[in-house]
Order: sequence, then structure tokens, then C-alpha cells
Amino acid sequence: MSSRTSERFSALYRLRVDGRDVQARARALALEQSIEMPLEAVTQDFIRDNVVARVESIEAAADDGGAGFDVKLSFATATTGLEAGQLLNMLFGNCSLQPDVELLDFEPGPDLLAALPGPRFGVDGWRRALGLDRARARPLTCTALKPQGQSPQQLGELAGTFARAGIDVIKDDHGIADQEYARFGPRVAAVQRAIERAGAERMPAGRVLYAPTLSGGPRRLREQLRIVHDQGVAAVLICPMLSGVPTLVELVREEAGVPILAHPAFAGNARIAPDLLLGRMFRLFGADATIFPNFGGRFSYPRETCRAIARRAREPLGGAAAILPVPAGGMGTGRVDEMIEEFGSDVMLLIGGHLLAGATAAGDSILARATAFVERVHAAAASLRPPAAGREQ
Amino acid sequence: MSSRTSERFSALYRLRVDGRDVQARARALALEQSIEMPLEAVTQDFIRDNVVARVESIEAAADDGGAGFDVKLSFATATTGLEAGQLLNMLFGNCSLQPDVELLDFEPGPDLLAALPGPRFGVDGWRRALGLDRARARPLTCTALKPQGQSPQQLGELAGTFARAGIDVIKDDHGIADQEYARFGPRVAAVQRAIERAGAERMPAGRVLYAPTLSGGPRRLREQLRIVHDQGVAAVLICPMLSGVPTLVELVREEAGVPILAHPAFAGNARIAPDLLLGRMFRLFGADATIFPNFGGRFSYPRETCRAIARRAREPLGGAAAILPVPAGGMGTGRVDEMIEEFGSDVMLLIGGHLLAGATAAGDSILARATAFVERVHAAAASLRPPAAGREQ
Repeated sequence: MSSRTSERFSALYRLRVDGRDVQARARALALEQSIEMPLEAVTQDFIRDNVVARVESIEAAADDGGAGFDVKLSFATATTGLEAGQLLNMLFGNCSLQPDVELLDFEPGPDLLAALPGPRFGVDGWRRALGLDRARARPLTCTALKPQGQSPQQLGELAGTFARAGIDVIKDDHGIADQEYARFGPRVAAVQRAIERAGAERMPAGRVLYAPTLSGGPRRLREQLRIVHDQGVAAVLICPMLSGVPTLVELVREEAGVPILAHPAFAGNARIAPDLLLGRMFRLFGADATIFPNFGGRFSYPRETCRAIARRAREPLGGAAAILPVPAGGMGTGRVDEMIEEFGSDVMLLIGGHLLAGATAAGDSILARATAFVERVHAAAASLRPPAAGREQ
Repeated sequence: MSSRTSERFSALYRLRVDGRDVQARARALALEQSIEMPLEAVTQDFIRDNVVARVESIEAAADDGGAGFDVKLSFATATTGLEAGQLLNMLFGNCSLQPDVELLDFEPGPDLLAALPGPRFGVDGWRRALGLDRARARPLTCTALKPQGQSPQQLGELAGTFARAGIDVIKDDHGIADQEYARFGPRVAAVQRAIERAGAERMPAGRVLYAPTLSGGPRRLREQLRIVHDQGVAAVLICPMLSGVPTLVELVREEAGVPILAHPAFAGNARIAPDLLLGRMFRLFGADATIFPNFGGRFSYPRETCRAIARRAREPLGGAAAILPVPAGGMGTGRVDEMIEEFGSDVMLLIGGHLLAGATAAGDSILARATAFVERVHAAAASLRPPAAGREQ
């Protein structure tokens, strides 16, 4: 960490207040999020001039029918202590309790950007881990082991089936934690072995990455990471809003050593714009891919929100690598072409329950459905525009 | 942990859907929160009969103008792995992403209750730490060191003033983390020494507890707890929704060894009933006192919500000790009598910025204002009904 910085960062809020009140409300927000006390009681110039958040601009929200205002505040970077949890606190700690406030965006300066870990692997790291040719980039395929309640052996068999189908990344359902019917240790060992066996049998042989769900406090997480390393597991999944952002940044990002898939469980309750939280922030906190509920599935994010998440995951951002957006939440193989059209080639397509359900037609096994998913993605990828263009969409 | 349990726990949700859709929506919620896949794809009886959440009841919400339904689900306790983060995941992980769902309540069974740590100290523990007579229970007083940006010495001087006034608990502002202008180590040492000096000088001598803000990931938290122990600090403050609930449960609750004050920063963004989250859940996760934004302050919780938080903090709950509700968020000494009338004697009254602001009248110093706060509480306490009755309110 450098010596005292005078850097500031900015945050954009939507305030749903009457126009007559917005100036006072914006000033009150600036105090609430920085010194949490009346300005007149501040006696030190340094605090008044630097630590107190500043109202930089107030504009009527163009897209909100005149019902709200976009208020930009700036904060001293020093208030964050250059730590991710305290950054969240400065951005949205107390005002999370005030329903007229939404956090739309934030812009870190270079010092803050440098202090946040960012992804260790990113888009290219996933491809390297899979041994895929960067020059012929294609979307990655992903599925989920589910439901919870199965034994390690049963989950291993399912994983083997998916691996034989050639799915790139097989993740645990995020609800598979460390339950008595499939403790983390035996489960991860069984699944990893099954995937390795299936990969070796495939012609042509291909790599498949397993991403088990990490959960619990720091002691459990350390033990789970030890098992990940011992078993040669090549990715992990975590729910940052359940585990806590500081734990993701300081423990998992530092010690995992494999690509990290972020899951949005418990993240959707926030009045924080989803593109900011799932796209930009999870990326800055160390995720290499970010799962989000795609439009037209079991969740209600509109298409524009999903596009924005993908954009924030891949746009230039200091030295932070681009990460993979992972549209999910009730997707099926019938939507592969459309999702690739929408999100390009730097994407990981996640189809979970649809590969398991509806085995109605004769021979329509899980293996057949998973294989159809993979083939559909590979076929669609072949018709994609060149990756360089796809990357910039 | 015991062997396989057949225990179930229940959760109550408010669904804002049309009456024609509520049966299907409730079943979909039960699947979303347990197996996250279509029921027809489940082949194992054990999972279908146990792991899948059950819709136990659906009732039109009495207090919601007919616009919503109260849906009770039950879950196998085994799905939580008897771990706090996974419990949150089962209760509100994915459905946090669905805006028509609110979590109103949950009822743990004995196994789950026994697995969650609960408060180590609770109401009685705070009084013991302060050397207060249990038989003549009075409300505790609390204030906050602020604003951030001050040096350790400046914060120490302010703490000394508050301690001379006889305030029981002096906490860091929750925005005081580990910033360069007052690093955790020198700050905690300076404040603790100042409080000890002031306490020794007071007549009659009285104990004052300092609760510094813990922040950051597990490595930083361990280091901060080491400093807490080395310096003889007698309480701590943490923001569970920033630090992550599993970290509170597994690290801070286990290792702090002193009463824990929970702060609601980042907690208000949830569609989780505040009485449940701040009252019941923070208590089960190990908090000994829970700060909440009282009605009529800078926040908008209605009086009924505040009452409910206090009720959940102190109601019988397995073997979990009652904890102190801490109404806050823009309170002043003028509201002491009313707050004691409202919340009884088992309460910690937190007045922060109001002790620092408005030093307009001659001689109206911070010391004088803090002393007036303390005297007001002690006087009001003397006129309280007997504590046994106050306890059960």
C-alpha cells in the first residue's frame, strides 16, 4: 500500500425523491456514507475537505419518467482502507437501509483499482485451463450437478455422463454445500475421479473442469481448498454475497489457484444495479466468470440488464482481465443460438435442470441431451464472426 | 454433529402474486430453494420425500390489502449442513433474485438451533462486563467515535471525554475500519488507554467498554482480534452483512471472547423482514446486541418494525440468551424517556452525532452533552417498573 493518497473515486446513485428535496437529500447521503454526522460538528479541515463525500452532480434521471435523480458522489479512496468490504460499506453500507437510494455505478481510481485483486484467470485463463485454441475461440459449455441429496457416487456418475458428453465446466449446484449426504471431501474426490475417467475415455480426449461449491467460514474454506488442491480440481464456485466479499478477496482469490465461478445467490436482494454488482464488482473482487439469471428464464432480469452485465464483465477496466458472463437460470439447448448471437463467443453457457428433465422420448437420455447441448454450441460457434470482433461486441 | 437427522425447519414467505397463480408459484419457490430443478426429473425417493422443500400452507396475507400471500415452506434441516451461510442460501439464496418474494420468518428445529452458536454473552453478559447490578437493571448507554479521518490520538481524546461522562459502551463508527489515518492497531491502543485512564479518574469509578469495528477478510480479522486481546479491549463491533455471516459465526463468535455488537450496514437492502434478520438471525449467529435504525430518525423503519426487532432479540429461543436491542440512527437525549418507555430496561441506547453537534450554547461541550445523556438515562431508569416486568414486555 502506498502512503497517503489524495485519490478520490466516484459513485452514482439513483435517488427517488421530490425535485424540491433532492439537493438536501444528496447532501445528507454524502454525509451518511462518509462521516455519518452533521457537517457543522466537524472541526478538522482535513476531514471537511477530504473525508466528507462530495456531491459532484445531480441530474434528472433520463430513463425514469422524471421520478428520480442521478446523484454522483465522490469519496476519498483513503476511506476504503483499500479493502473490499470497507469499499462496499462506503458505497452502500448505511444507505442500504434507506429505500429511496439505489447504487447504480462506481468508478475506482488507479490506487483503488490496484488494491482490488481482480480476476487471476479471466476469459483467457478459462480457455488455457481447457486447452482450447485462443485463435478459434468458442463459447464454453457448463452444467450443474443436481439435485442435492445424492451420494458422492451418484454425483460422480452424473458428472461422468456430462464429461462424456464433452461439457467444458461441470459445477456443483450452488445448494450443494457440505451436507451429510455428500460431504465435501468424498464428493469432490468422487466427482473429480469420474470426470478424469470420462475425459480419458473420450475420443478425442478433452479436458473437463469441475467447479465444486465452496461454503462456510474461513476454517471450512481453507479445508475445502486443501481438498481442491489435493484432488487436482481445476475450478471452484462461490457465492460472494453468502461467503462475504472480504473472504472472497482475501482468502479464496488468494489461495484458490484455479478459476473462480461466482454465483449470484443472495445477491439479488440489493438495490444495487445488477450489472455493477455481478459484472463489475464481482470481477474486481476476483471472479473469473459471473453467473446471472438470463432473460426469459425463471428470473425477471430484462434483456437490457443481462446485456449490461455481460458488458461490465468484459469492458476495459484498468489491468483487470475480462471475465466470462454466464447466462443461466432456466436455459435450454433451444436457446443456444440466440444466446451466442446475444453474448458472442466470450461466454460460458450454463444449462442445468433442462439436461436432467423431460426424458420423455425413447433414448432421450441425459447423455443424449448433454451431447446435443455441446454439439449445438460447437455448431453455432463455427458460424460465429471472427473472435476479435465478437470480443468487442 | 449428530448423525443423519430427519428434522425439518420452516420458513414463511410473502409472495406478491395473483391468487390464480399462487399455488404454482409456491411450488416453484419450494423447488427453487431446495433442488433448483423440475420435480419430474428427480428419480430418488429420498430426495423427493425429504430434500425437496414442501409447501405447508398458503394464506392470504391479512395485513397486505389482499395483495399478497403468506406461504410456509418446510425444509430438511440436513440441507443446511448445519452451517449458517448455507442456511441463508436455503432460505433466500436464489429467491433473492425474484422480486415477488420476501422472507418474513423462519423457525429452526432443535438440531438447527443447537448448531447455530447464538450469543455467548447476551443481555446479562453486557451487565456483567460492566459490573452492573442485575437486580437493578437499567438501560445501557452507548455512543460512537466519529468522524473517520481523525488520528488515533484524536479518537482517544474523544473516547476519554465520553468515558468521563460515564457512557457504558463506546463503539467505533462503523465506517472506521483500517484506514491510513488511524490504523487498527494504534487506534485501538490509544482509545483503550484513554478509556482506562478516564475510568480510573471518575468518581465513583466505573467500567467503560470499548467496541472497535472489525473489518476485512479472515486474516485481517484474526490480526484485529489479536490486538483486541492484547490491549484488553472488552467488546467488538462487526457488520455481519459486509463481513459475511459464516465469518461471524465461525471466526468472530468463536474467537472474540468478548460481547459482539452487530451493525446493520449493508443489511437493509434485503427483502428479508428486519425483525427476522436483525433480531432473530443476528442473535442466532452470535451477536450479543443488535443496532437498528429507530423510528423517527434518519431512517424509515416504522415503529412496529422497531418493536418487532426488540421482541425478536429478547423472546425465548431455545437455549439462546436474550440480546440487547440498540435503537439508533439519529437519536438525541430528548428521546431517552420515550425510548425507555418503548423498549424497557433491557436495551442499549445509542446516541452518536447528536452528542457532537450543536455546541451552540456557551458551555454546551461534548462532555456536558454526554453527561446529560447519561444522567437522563439513569434518571429515567430509576422510575422504571421492576426489571422483571420490563424484561417480558
